Amino acid sequence: MTADAARIWTAALIIIGDEILSGRTQDRNVSQIAAWLNVQGIRLREVRVVADDTDAIVEAVNILRARNDYLFTTGGIGPTHDDITVDAIAIALGVRVEIHPTARAVLAEYYETRGGLTEARLRMARVPAGASLIENRMSGAPGIRHGNIFIMAGVPHITAMMLESLSGQLEGGLPLLSAQIGCWVPESEVAELLRETERTHEGCQIGSYPFFREGKVGANFVIRSTDRQSLDACMVALTAGLEAAGWPVTQDGI
Amino acid sequence: MTADAARIWTAALIIIGDEILSGRTQDRNVSQIAAWLNVQGIRLREVRVVADDTDAIVEAVNILRARNDYLFTTGGIGPTHDDITVDAIAIALGVRVEIHPTARAVLAEYYETRGGLTEARLRMARVPAGASLIENRMSGAPGIRHGNIFIMAGVPHITAMMLESLSGQLEGGLPLLSAQIGCWVPESEVAELLRETERTHEGCQIGSYPFFREGKVGANFVIRSTDRQSLDACMVALTAGLEAAGWPVTQDGI
Repeated sequence: MTADAARIWTAALIIIGDEILSGRTQDRNVSQIAAWLNVQGIRLREVRVVADDTDAIVEAVNILRARNDYLFTTGGIGPTHDDITVDAIAIALGVRVEIHPTARAVLAEYYETRGGLTEARLRMARVPAGASLIENRMSGAPGIRHGNIFIMAGVPHITAMMLESLSGQLEGGLPLLSAQIGCWVPESEVAELLRETERTHEGCQIGSYPFFREGKVGANFVIRSTDRQSLDACMVALTAGLEAAGWPVTQDGI
Repeated sequence: MTADAARIWTAALIIIGDEILSGRTQDRNVSQIAAWLNVQGIRLREVRVVADDTDAIVEAVNILRARNDYLFTTGGIGPTHDDITVDAIAIALGVRVEIHPTARAVLAEYYETRGGLTEARLRMARVPAGASLIENRMSGAPGIRHGNIFIMAGVPHITAMMLESLSGQLEGGLPLLSAQIGCWVPESEVAELLRETERTHEGCQIGSYPFFREGKVGANFVIRSTDRQSLDACMVALTAGLEAAGWPVTQDGI
């Protein structure tokens, strides 16, 4: 494996929104962005959920963009007074906010038959100076890219469209592969087996995820590695270990 | 309103778990803890999701416990090798890890008819020195309290039990009240009305949450305030403004 292939590319995500912190809305963007990043060979390393508050956004943006290859944000890019993401990111970057001409044209066309491009709607063409756009085939208002920052919608299916536009566009490393097995075993019964199997399979991590179902306890075990052969060998060893201890295994988890 | 009543109590939450960052598991703890905190008169101000990584946990714990009244964590307190939360928090606090005698007794009783208290299971009695316990009527292994830090399970229904044990035990301020109305209106049509209504109702925040359903756009508007009268007045004004503009309102949202 070359040095380049071994490089791990990382991303951080900032979820901007009082509605998540109040418990009103169940976030769906973490899991969809995480899964999409995996396919691009990029690891989601940290997530922060912050309020609709300029200082909180600026702090998170500046710390996370510096220590990750990519930074994604979701939320706060609509037309209303509580949409402050663009202004906050411009402050974090030390640039002014400007109207992006292409965004203005896209919005003018989208709203031509929908009541026209009002002042409120024109807010959605505002970007931190120097930004480019991320296409949104769903609702007109584009996402925004500025350097390594990707500014996406809060509404999950709009973010999904924006991710689709970005697929294959970002440099990444080897995708993190994973495989799962399930077992009707209390995880504490096999803690030592898990630890030893991980230790003897370099480059593999084993996660243990217990559950209670149908009145019984069980666990799913997820093995992660960037190397298919190591992953397969670890899976074979763990399966054999569990079955030797009297715990039949279900492929792909329970 | 006295100075005491106006004090805002805040909490932060750290979700510890590779399974959230990989996209494998959809988090459920943010929304349930946020909702529970609201009832206690405490605002969830920030959330971080970090990997099963000691340095990442230590950094988040030390920043967030210092700037919030309370810090909650979920995940990483089971019996397996990937459960490192207690060790990481002990490092953050600069204390050693010890076996809590009550936790040991609780686990010994729980596992008496379930194969005995093995070394792996005894791991779940480990706490940062000086901690007290949070009762878990579900599965034996208790949560842990150390100063203003509350260490909870990753499995949402176990965390729910732990929250129940804590209900009414934490000092908080006035609960943040909220009310919601819905409207089949593109939010950009009423952006100015929302901004003005918020501006003229001190102590009220209005959040605008657009959606697409049945081929139509609409939005729910959530008003938040600690004062019932202000909240009601703001709601009446916003409802009147929307209906005067020709947008019928649905109470409690769409």
